Amino acid sequence: MNAVSPLASRRHDSATERWSRMPVIRTGDDYISSLKGRGTRLFLFGELIDEPADHPMIRPSINALRATYDLAIDDPELATAHSPLIDAPVNRFLHMPESPQDLVMKNRMQRRLGQLTGTCFQRCTGLDTLSVLHSITWDIDEKHGTGYHQRYLAFLKEAQRHNVLIAAGMTDPKGDRSKRPFEQSDQDMFLHVSGRNDDGIFVRGVKAHMTGGWNQHWICVMPTMNLSEHDKDYAVVGMIPGDAEGITYIYGRQSSDTRSMEGGSIDQGNAEYGGQEVWVYFDDVFIPHEHVLMDGEYEFAQDMVARFTAYHRASYVCKTGLGDVMTGAAATIADYNGVDKVSHIKDKLVEMVHLNETIFSSGIASSHEAKPLASGIYMNDAMLSNVCKHNVTRFPYEIARLAQDLAGGIVATMPSEKDLDNEEAGAIIRRFLKGRDDIPTEDRMRILRLIENMTLGRNAVGYLTESMHGAGSPQAQRIQILRGMDVESKKWHARKLAGIKQA
Amino acid sequence: MNAVSPLASRRHDSATERWSRMPVIRTGDDYISSLKGRGTRLFLFGELIDEPADHPMIRPSINALRATYDLAIDDPELATAHSPLIDAPVNRFLHMPESPQDLVMKNRMQRRLGQLTGTCFQRCTGLDTLSVLHSITWDIDEKHGTGYHQRYLAFLKEAQRHNVLIAAGMTDPKGDRSKRPFEQSDQDMFLHVSGRNDDGIFVRGVKAHMTGGWNQHWICVMPTMNLSEHDKDYAVVGMIPGDAEGITYIYGRQSSDTRSMEGGSIDQGNAEYGGQEVWVYFDDVFIPHEHVLMDGEYEFAQDMVARFTAYHRASYVCKTGLGDVMTGAAATIADYNGVDKVSHIKDKLVEMVHLNETIFSSGIASSHEAKPLASGIYMNDAMLSNVCKHNVTRFPYEIARLAQDLAGGIVATMPSEKDLDNEEAGAIIRRFLKGRDDIPTEDRMRILRLIENMTLGRNAVGYLTESMHGAGSPQAQRIQILRGMDVESKKWHARKLAGIKQA
Amino acid sequence: MNAVSPLASRRHDSATERWSRMPVIRTGDDYISSLKGRGTRLFLFGELIDEPADHPMIRPSINALRATYDLAIDDPELATAHSPLIDAPVNRFLHMPESPQDLVMKNRMQRRLGQLTGTCFQRCTGLDTLSVLHSITWDIDEKHGTGYHQRYLAFLKEAQRHNVLIAAGMTDPKGDRSKRPFEQSDQDMFLHVSGRNDDGIFVRGVKAHMTGGWNQHWICVMPTMNLSEHDKDYAVVGMIPGDAEGITYIYGRQSSDTRSMEGGSIDQGNAEYGGQEVWVYFDDVFIPHEHVLMDGEYEFAQDMVARFTAYHRASYVCKTGLGDVMTGAAATIADYNGVDKVSHIKDKLVEMVHLNETIFSSGIASSHEAKPLASGIYMNDAMLSNVCKHNVTRFPYEIARLAQDLAGGIVATMPSEKDLDNEEAGAIIRRFLKGRDDIPTEDRMRILRLIENMTLGRNAVGYLTESMHGAGSPQAQRIQILRGMDVESKKWHARKLAGIKQA
Amino acid sequence: MNAVSPLASRRHDSATERWSRMPVIRTGDDYISSLKGRGTRLFLFGELIDEPADHPMIRPSINALRATYDLAIDDPELATAHSPLIDAPVNRFLHMPESPQDLVMKNRMQRRLGQLTGTCFQRCTGLDTLSVLHSITWDIDEKHGTGYHQRYLAFLKEAQRHNVLIAAGMTDPKGDRSKRPFEQSDQDMFLHVSGRNDDGIFVRGVKAHMTGGWNQHWICVMPTMNLSEHDKDYAVVGMIPGDAEGITYIYGRQSSDTRSMEGGSIDQGNAEYGGQEVWVYFDDVFIPHEHVLMDGEYEFAQDMVARFTAYHRASYVCKTGLGDVMTGAAATIADYNGVDKVSHIKDKLVEMVHLNETIFSSGIASSHEAKPLASGIYMNDAMLSNVCKHNVTRFPYEIARLAQDLAGGIVATMPSEKDLDNEEAGAIIRRFLKGRDDIPTEDRMRILRLIENMTLGRNAVGYLTESMHGAGSPQAQRIQILRGMDVESKKWHARKLAGIKQA
Repeated sequence: MNAVSPLASRRHDSATERWSRMPVIRTGDDYISSLKGRGTRLFLFGELIDEPADHPMIRPSINALRATYDLAIDDPELATAHSPLIDAPVNRFLHMPESPQDLVMKNRMQRRLGQLTGTCFQRCTGLDTLSVLHSITWDIDEKHGTGYHQRYLAFLKEAQRHNVLIAAGMTDPKGDRSKRPFEQSDQDMFLHVSGRNDDGIFVRGVKAHMTGGWNQHWICVMPTMNLSEHDKDYAVVGMIPGDAEGITYIYGRQSSDTRSMEGGSIDQGNAEYGGQEVWVYFDDVFIPHEHVLMDGEYEFAQDMVARFTAYHRASYVCKTGLGDVMTGAAATIADYNGVDKVSHIKDKLVEMVHLNETIFSSGIASSHEAKPLASGIYMNDAMLSNVCKHNVTRFPYEIARLAQDLAGGIVATMPSEKDLDNEEAGAIIRRFLKGRDDIPTEDRMRILRLIENMTLGRNAVGYLTESMHGAGSPQAQRIQILRGMDVESKKWHARKLAGIKQA
Repeated sequence: MNAVSPLASRRHDSATERWSRMPVIRTGDDYISSLKGRGTRLFLFGELIDEPADHPMIRPSINALRATYDLAIDDPELATAHSPLIDAPVNRFLHMPESPQDLVMKNRMQRRLGQLTGTCFQRCTGLDTLSVLHSITWDIDEKHGTGYHQRYLAFLKEAQRHNVLIAAGMTDPKGDRSKRPFEQSDQDMFLHVSGRNDDGIFVRGVKAHMTGGWNQHWICVMPTMNLSEHDKDYAVVGMIPGDAEGITYIYGRQSSDTRSMEGGSIDQGNAEYGGQEVWVYFDDVFIPHEHVLMDGEYEFAQDMVARFTAYHRASYVCKTGLGDVMTGAAATIADYNGVDKVSHIKDKLVEMVHLNETIFSSGIASSHEAKPLASGIYMNDAMLSNVCKHNVTRFPYEIARLAQDLAGGIVATMPSEKDLDNEEAGAIIRRFLKGRDDIPTEDRMRILRLIENMTLGRNAVGYLTESMHGAGSPQAQRIQILRGMDVESKKWHARKLAGIKQA
Repeated sequence: MNAVSPLASRRHDSATERWSRMPVIRTGDDYISSLKGRGTRLFLFGELIDEPADHPMIRPSINALRATYDLAIDDPELATAHSPLIDAPVNRFLHMPESPQDLVMKNRMQRRLGQLTGTCFQRCTGLDTLSVLHSITWDIDEKHGTGYHQRYLAFLKEAQRHNVLIAAGMTDPKGDRSKRPFEQSDQDMFLHVSGRNDDGIFVRGVKAHMTGGWNQHWICVMPTMNLSEHDKDYAVVGMIPGDAEGITYIYGRQSSDTRSMEGGSIDQGNAEYGGQEVWVYFDDVFIPHEHVLMDGEYEFAQDMVARFTAYHRASYVCKTGLGDVMTGAAATIADYNGVDKVSHIKDKLVEMVHLNETIFSSGIASSHEAKPLASGIYMNDAMLSNVCKHNVTRFPYEIARLAQDLAGGIVATMPSEKDLDNEEAGAIIRRFLKGRDDIPTEDRMRILRLIENMTLGRNAVGYLTESMHGAGSPQAQRIQILRGMDVESKKWHARKLAGIKQA
Repeated sequence: MNAVSPLASRRHDSATERWSRMPVIRTGDDYISSLKGRGTRLFLFGELIDEPADHPMIRPSINALRATYDLAIDDPELATAHSPLIDAPVNRFLHMPESPQDLVMKNRMQRRLGQLTGTCFQRCTGLDTLSVLHSITWDIDEKHGTGYHQRYLAFLKEAQRHNVLIAAGMTDPKGDRSKRPFEQSDQDMFLHVSGRNDDGIFVRGVKAHMTGGWNQHWICVMPTMNLSEHDKDYAVVGMIPGDAEGITYIYGRQSSDTRSMEGGSIDQGNAEYGGQEVWVYFDDVFIPHEHVLMDGEYEFAQDMVARFTAYHRASYVCKTGLGDVMTGAAATIADYNGVDKVSHIKDKLVEMVHLNETIFSSGIASSHEAKPLASGIYMNDAMLSNVCKHNVTRFPYEIARLAQDLAGGIVATMPSEKDLDNEEAGAIIRRFLKGRDDIPTEDRMRILRLIENMTLGRNAVGYLTESMHGAGSPQAQRIQILRGMDVESKKWHARKLAGIKQA
């Protein structure tokens, strides 16, 4: 494919022009402003949304990203780092890990943001993408004499200076799972290079459930799996502005998502924060050469995915921040019900904490045990990172189950906020939905709605389903654990102790 | 309390008049008609609803109950039984268990209805209430020389003749859990006798999260826990028409409940069926003597609750019907994705079935092992019934987790049905959200929405939260298991085998 | 193979002679006597044992079988049944299930014997073998016009009259698991017909870990897996006296087995009862035609195994009897330590009971749900039977873990009984190993040794490892569950509720 | 108590004399020699053992400790460290943690020794005791102006110079658990100061199940729980030579312990290595002042225990070394059976590794997250250390269960090594107990015996029961987790997100 395409003659803005359009962001407010007036095409409920940043169903997901800016101001030690590249402090989400300690600090920041937002704050994929590209571009250059690493560093510097967000566009729709990309009946089922001209390349395809995909300034498209020689056109990595020509977004639904459009602030459970998953269609979208970081080097796709997951599966310690909120919510409702001293209640809280800290320990251990790669950057220990993520596919479900246990059945049978606002119905509710005399009924309802939000509602997507599938489904971790388990040395020890003669 | 109340002089319709207002129902259509024009007061989203049976958010819960009528016609062997009381076939939900086999058939019917509706069909509490009243009224009469059992039989005959539904009003709001009913600062925190006149009694209070509470023709109010001598006024059991004067309903929200009001049939996941939980406020509601089945005999409250749970905790085999749907949905999506032959996929399906059948076995064993009570009726084995329910508080959560695993992340990131209906967005979705070539994208979306519905959405309430708390929260079962475990005989056997001399 | 073998001319005792040698047993004492002077060849620790029944390491396993005789006298309602074949009461272990209730009563008896012995009492395999042969011989006759069923009935009558024991010889060594029987390099790796003469057949091979193999009067050899046309010689079922010429037994070791040879009664934990597994080598052992029940009808091997496991996997409810002992032991040590009122202790006991009763319910449900076969006999519901056994591969391990938790570390660090008997060491032990003042130290030691016995020692084999592998390893159950799960109907229901059009 | 005791006039050897008797150890051989001719009083099976180091049942436990000496020579980077105290390399088991990295290296060494020995190598308690005394003696001195820390440093220097072993004597028998030490009817139920003279103090009491208690050169006695003012005499810490006058050892039994006395090397499973637990009775044993490190400062007992467990609960990463052996053994038997490519086999191995690495990650995370104490030493993060140990009370049991699953029933039914040695029986066994043709039967038996050893036999004590109770039983960790969980901050976050106004 891609012989002489009609795209060849198309004119597009240059890398410099692209950066010159980008804002320089300092505060959360700057960030919110930066999303407005971008002229993107976003479908939600079958309609193109004029100003998505103002849409009540979308805004909570933007607020969650905003928290990453605010934290950098509120707690710079935790959420910023010194960048040697620009010799200035940068948001930690734009700082490349130069040591295990950098990865540990990243984990702490992730847990903190989980506590502050109770949802997915959508900025980890971008950091993990930038991190993996540091070593991958270096390694490609080493082999092929290309110049990707310098392009990468130039991009990174600008990103740090502008303090902007990069979304990761990784997951292709995949179509028939038994076929490789080039074998698909529909060639666009995986994103690929669809044309070229002197200034750059064009890409076509879809990236599915992109986390916070609309909310960020750049999208990095990259391969989702290992590729063969026949898949060369699919071996492409590039940076694209979120408002580039040819991009169409379709918003993903979440459980109870429209509660944010009902008015009020109780029934949403967490009225301030939410997650975002979007489908993004790239219809011959241009990327100038300066922003292309892989172009045909298919043999690096597998390493890229493996290293990305080594970083990203440890990033799931963020869920321990949500686990803290979940535990806190369960402890609060027990308190409001007057049963916080009961032994089986305390025991369940202990279990929630034990499971949550087990997740934390495998994530943070993976960071402490990080080793440097050839490019000089540090990468998480892959075994422990996979172990972390694998625990994340299990324990949040049990923590959520225990939270529902402590909440009581009322968590799923409570009347609506509008009933509370009605004079007659509200009076009945206020009188009878009370627990301890000194706790306002509304507070009790709020904490119950938060538990509903995180176990059945909008943020259950972030706390449960994303814990299951984000950064790869459970079986993906099992395959990595199988590969990394070094079974031969284990067998050697066993045979030795059993007294079996070995060569 | 209850000295000379102003209620004493109020006039109310008699038991006969109440029955004469009741429909005689044969078909599902009859049932739907029977709910219309009742003039009840029901709040939903802060508004009184004119004709709840026609409300799109309420209708699915009515459809689920309707299925109990339809099944009686479609499969009479399963869903009807011969009533010796009226010497005619009756809906099995109105048939008192005269043998273990009756309880076993009830379990089969419950599983079947779970398969047919994928939700809580709301009719079990009524049957289990009628069942427990058979023996409790008998036992009270034996001790006090009262005439409750005859009243009960008379009511039951009419109920069978009319083929009507009885909702169970059991759970009081409870307020401060450290205080008994009579100690509460608000005397109405538990429902109680609030007045009397020559014809009957009046009751005041609230019954919380009543399953299918509005959808039924009668409500049976009854105590929620053991009572002391001081709680005499709270020891009341009575049958009240759902449209009686003084009743106010407030509708309980469920996750994603408003999707039913969006139009379309995909995003609801299960557009036809849903559950219902309502709060019901009784403001001096009259009950004629003929429909009072306990009035002050507080010492029977504990037995009533214990026996009710013996029946009702085995009724949770209904969830194995939902488990069948959950497993079927997971198997279908694996099929649509073309991975149904993969070993870890099959293994997860086997695990789902194993857990589901374990629940089924403890429920059905409890029925097979039923023993007769003094009144001649059979009651489930209490230990196994508690074991059944306790497994229900665990396994559906794991089954749901496995279903989400098999579904893939798309289960929680999929665009809306309205996007599918939009020409431009729809085209992208239809093209890229496809799995196997021969399966329409819409079918794939539908099955994913069903999984969302049962794990995060509206019927997750029925499959998960209700599994946790319905018929008593996990700790309630543990207390019953502790009481029934006969630890002394177990210790005796252990000491014997250990060679310890025993008296 | 098996052309004209030198075996053809060998003379052996007839079926009648074999029966005439057999004792008629009434009491436990009769049974013990019946095992003496049999002249069998049994290896234990490299030596041929003269009189195995008197060997201290073997005797506990004989005592466990004896309990099945004693119980028939002590509790005839539970442990005997009326045999229509001989119109007399027989031990229930010799009674063929004519109804679900027969299977239920069998389960109750099994649990009781588990409680009484705390080990594997080794008689279930015989009953389940007899049960499956009822229908299999019938079915073979139906197809092939053979006369196996009459032979079977004749044998069964004699067995009932003599009240003797039949061991099941099922498991072949299997050698290279990737090859079928006829493909093995060593033709004897599976037991097979090795010769024939006018009076009968000869068999050669090994049956591995035969439960209670030496302790019984007859051995029934039968195929261990499905067979192909090439495996015809391996398709053989026959009844062989335990003392037949050509049989060699090799005794299987168990953890801590030699404690029974140390003298004393404490350190054994359970000094009275134990299990037994033996390897049995058949070196051209003769079977007269009258005792041959399958001979070449290879196509019935699969059904035979499937039906055998349907019976036998439900027989594992016996482990709930051991679970009762385990729970009783844990409750006793908590009591002796003075902590039986502590909430986490009670909670762990409840969990043990819950898991134990879950096992019981799936077993007994499988019996209640039994259906008749063509021969008129009832067989357990296969799905629930597999579910029962599958739970048995999990829950006893967790029950044992909890028992070790309640026992304290002392369960695995306690000095020996001989130290207790030593004057100086004994004084220290008696003084310091005490718990509550009013409990003798020796009693505390005894109950701890019982817990050690069942979690690490001799009866851990019966409670744990046999729970794992007896009647088929976990994967075997998963395969059966996969086969029986009727996934198509589950998918149908899911698609229906999702609104997918189906043919 | 302790007025003028008859002990006052007793003469004992001084601290200097005690050290002068101590060997200087370099090699494993030195260590073995150092244990001979000590003239200790050790009871085993009711007899005083002349030379315990030569006893076949005791020797394996000595071999395990020897491995800690050998490793220091074989891999000095892993198993030695530079001691600033004596400015020389020392065995890492004698090196106080000066940084998180020291604790991490300790964990790696522990895992390695677990791999090398497959059992408890008994040297961690000594290191963790020395570690906690560093800060505790410092803190006591700070408050009371005592001179314990200098005594401690002096002792530590000598210990490093001599390269000797210190056993931890912590667990008192406790008697009636509802009473404090001073309330016990038997004043010796907790070890305490029983007399004094000018040179030092005398102690009396018992330390129960002391790990490797006889195998070490010194014993450090210390309190087992928090103490009150009334318990002053019980607040004693002191260093005592293992061969001091007045000490009597009683050897603890383990499952299958006597197999080591049968000759042969197969049936033991792990013929080389084992654990050791002894009861140690102190009958007015003298401690010179120089070796007393706490004497009456009861208020530090609680901190001492809490800090000891912070160190020691992370030391349980050693079990991941055993988990490696367990996994290797399971993989080997799968290999020998020819089923190592089967998907459910691989899946179970992955699960074993996942659980094992989860333990490792919580242990090592606890070390990486260590913080310095006032005395300058680093201590493990207490929350993660407790989480590590709590996982150790669960996962090894599941790993062992999976290993038994992969092993097959043969793991608990295999004939004895003596049968293998018998000509006739051996021939049958060698022929039929074979798996894959190219694997000798004996090798298959050896690996099966190793699995038996670690799941039911002697090292199951180290892998399972000690995992449960060592360093405190599960409930002890739950109490620490409850204390450390900071529930108030978790509640604050939950209330914030729920929109509840907070002060």
